[in-house]
Amino acid sequence: MTEKLKPAARVSGQKQDVWSIVNEAAAASPRQPIVNMGQGFFGYNPPAFILDAAKQALDRVECNQYSPTKGRPRLKKALADAYAPHWGRKLDPETEITITTGANEGMLSAFMAFIEPGDEVIVFEPFFDQYISNIEMPGGKVVYVPMRPPADGDHKTLSAGEWTIDFDYLEKAITPRTKMLVLNTPHNPVGKVCNREELQRIADLCVKHQIIILSDEVYDRLFYVPFTRIATFSPEVEAITLTVGSAGKNFYATGWRVGWLIGPPSLIQYVSAAHTRICYSSVSPLQEACAIGFEQADAQDFWSTCITDMQSKMARFTSVFDELGIPYSEPEGGYFVMANFAKVKLPEGYPFPPHVAERPRDFKLAWFLIQELGVAAIPPSEFYTEENAHVVENYLRFAVCKPDEVLEDAKERLRGLKKYIQG
Amino acid sequence: MTEKLKPAARVSGQKQDVWSIVNEAAAASPRQPIVNMGQGFFGYNPPAFILDAAKQALDRVECNQYSPTKGRPRLKKALADAYAPHWGRKLDPETEITITTGANEGMLSAFMAFIEPGDEVIVFEPFFDQYISNIEMPGGKVVYVPMRPPADGDHKTLSAGEWTIDFDYLEKAITPRTKMLVLNTPHNPVGKVCNREELQRIADLCVKHQIIILSDEVYDRLFYVPFTRIATFSPEVEAITLTVGSAGKNFYATGWRVGWLIGPPSLIQYVSAAHTRICYSSVSPLQEACAIGFEQADAQDFWSTCITDMQSKMARFTSVFDELGIPYSEPEGGYFVMANFAKVKLPEGYPFPPHVAERPRDFKLAWFLIQELGVAAIPPSEFYTEENAHVVENYLRFAVCKPDEVLEDAKERLRGLKKYIQG
Repeated sequence: MTEKLKPAARVSGQKQDVWSIVNEAAAASPRQPIVNMGQGFFGYNPPAFILDAAKQALDRVECNQYSPTKGRPRLKKALADAYAPHWGRKLDPETEITITTGANEGMLSAFMAFIEPGDEVIVFEPFFDQYISNIEMPGGKVVYVPMRPPADGDHKTLSAGEWTIDFDYLEKAITPRTKMLVLNTPHNPVGKVCNREELQRIADLCVKHQIIILSDEVYDRLFYVPFTRIATFSPEVEAITLTVGSAGKNFYATGWRVGWLIGPPSLIQYVSAAHTRICYSSVSPLQEACAIGFEQADAQDFWSTCITDMQSKMARFTSVFDELGIPYSEPEGGYFVMANFAKVKLPEGYPFPPHVAERPRDFKLAWFLIQELGVAAIPPSEFYTEENAHVVENYLRFAVCKPDEVLEDAKERLRGLKKYIQG
Repeated sequence: MTEKLKPAARVSGQKQDVWSIVNEAAAASPRQPIVNMGQGFFGYNPPAFILDAAKQALDRVECNQYSPTKGRPRLKKALADAYAPHWGRKLDPETEITITTGANEGMLSAFMAFIEPGDEVIVFEPFFDQYISNIEMPGGKVVYVPMRPPADGDHKTLSAGEWTIDFDYLEKAITPRTKMLVLNTPHNPVGKVCNREELQRIADLCVKHQIIILSDEVYDRLFYVPFTRIATFSPEVEAITLTVGSAGKNFYATGWRVGWLIGPPSLIQYVSAAHTRICYSSVSPLQEACAIGFEQADAQDFWSTCITDMQSKMARFTSVFDELGIPYSEPEGGYFVMANFAKVKLPEGYPFPPHVAERPRDFKLAWFLIQELGVAAIPPSEFYTEENAHVVENYLRFAVCKPDEVLEDAKERLRGLKKYIQG
């Protein structure tokens, strides 16, 4: 390629990401078919009432054509109604809600709306890896603040709530260039639901320094302890908070690409403006289906079913770790579980390929499980900076949003770990 | 709002866009319901075989979950097969095609992939307005080259092919910083299909200066004169060309947000990388439906039906201009027609609101048609720089992709212009 055709720095020289490493390892494993508990897609369909709504939308001319750039009115109205009980007041569908092409493009729109080159954005480790490129695209600088697993996580199963935010670190991370802070609760991959005290400390700091809070709450319908939304703490907090939601996570449809941001009109208008310039508008018939989903969810008892179903999957799956004596962080929300494989001794001289051998131990654990047992999980050190990667080198993340028979298959395979477990 | 919460320059201080001006005028018109021939959405549904495919995809678990970031394999394969006859060779679905969230996000992905701050991108006027913000988002500088209407366009109906590219202007616009050139054929709003000689001159310049050609060919299934794809001119041209396509335009489904780019692996890989960072992946069930659409289109005789149907709509609608003696550019492709209202005398002292009064005459014409006749069309000076806006001050753009009864209603209303026509 000639020099003149070379790509921009923002896309060139990217190292191989964790998803393609795991997927390639899975494809090359001798244990086919492997059980994929890596990526967080659902192994089952959205409920029938939402699928039916989508099919009916496909018959309507206006549902197949451009949606308004800010989203279909019916979906914004349905979201305003669905979130009102949580906000304790009515929400204005026209000015306080904007629809995006999934939560991912929604967060990019927020960064594009507010970040000037050199502005700083605080992100807790472990982080969802798309945050980083989305912040860097408009020229933002990521400032990392670690969350730490419980000190005795190698030995004991404890609540995911025992993972702690380093608040000293957080306070020191704030500078005059700090423009935004990304919060994620319920948390991926940890499964922690931030408690009121933690949220209050974050809120106080952000109000004091006027830092925009981008609260990624895409797992907001999956919580197993009380879940609080930071936007609802006070008018001062609400004025600086953008809350992110996802139909993909809410309705078991990660391929639908419908998300939204909720916040004060003073912020939402610029998110809408950025979204218009990025995607113009979002997928129209599936927005309509999501509107109907929100309208009917309570009558279908859908939200409580979501919780009980996912809790039952979590209990079903984690029982194998109890059996094996492998500790894990008991999730407070979401559909991921972090298990701690400190006790697993990898065979001496095991032939790891170079791109795995050079990475932290969790990559070796992931590779080993894929090759020997045919179970794929995600090494979470990818969600830390190099400096802090060691913190999670014994952990692997498993997504339990899979059919029960897949979970049973995974358990049976994981029992093969027994001979590698010490102590 | 405190200084610290202020938006980034890229979204602040945007002037009101033409779409919202026209939509607001339409909503405020006394002639309700108005006939909207402004925005280019279809007034009818995709064909049944594609809708059925979408409904069936919704029943399949994997079609409701994340698509691979580069697109569903079946769609890439279907596109490779569908485009092979035009390329005169097999296309590799894995390396030469990438799926995007509509053509719009596809073009943004291309700019994000190749533009460094300060790089220049050549755009012909009139331009599709999203190009501009998409180029500016990664810091690119737009360099405009005007297309000019035929000199006697005020008096005579002529082929849209009579609009000419100013090649002297184009050669002078090229600098060492010129990284990309955006081509659009069939052209929105002009309806011109670039002929081989024009494309050859553009291709020669771009090969000589190693400028990436981003060829927006979203109306590629709607041509009424021979249509040539610049990528197919020679291996040297193909090596620098990204061709953009759109399922929304191909299948009458502008709300589906499925697009693609075709090009050499050396370029496509970076478009994919940028797309992954912008949207992660694109809407999964509708990608599957589009795959089936391409697989079945020939058997359904769909592509030739597209052409004959749209030509018949064009003839049906433009007959009213023939009646009225209003000249227009006879489209060579696409579904827009540019009519020239030089002969229409707007009443003296007509009460235009200030934001219309201060704009070129085409905005006043558009306002007048909406208020007096209840017909909405788009003023094309919005697609020129201020310097060249006067070139199209007598034109309005009409989208004819509407049901026949809507076209007839529009015609009946447009007959009301008779009393304002001079000469």
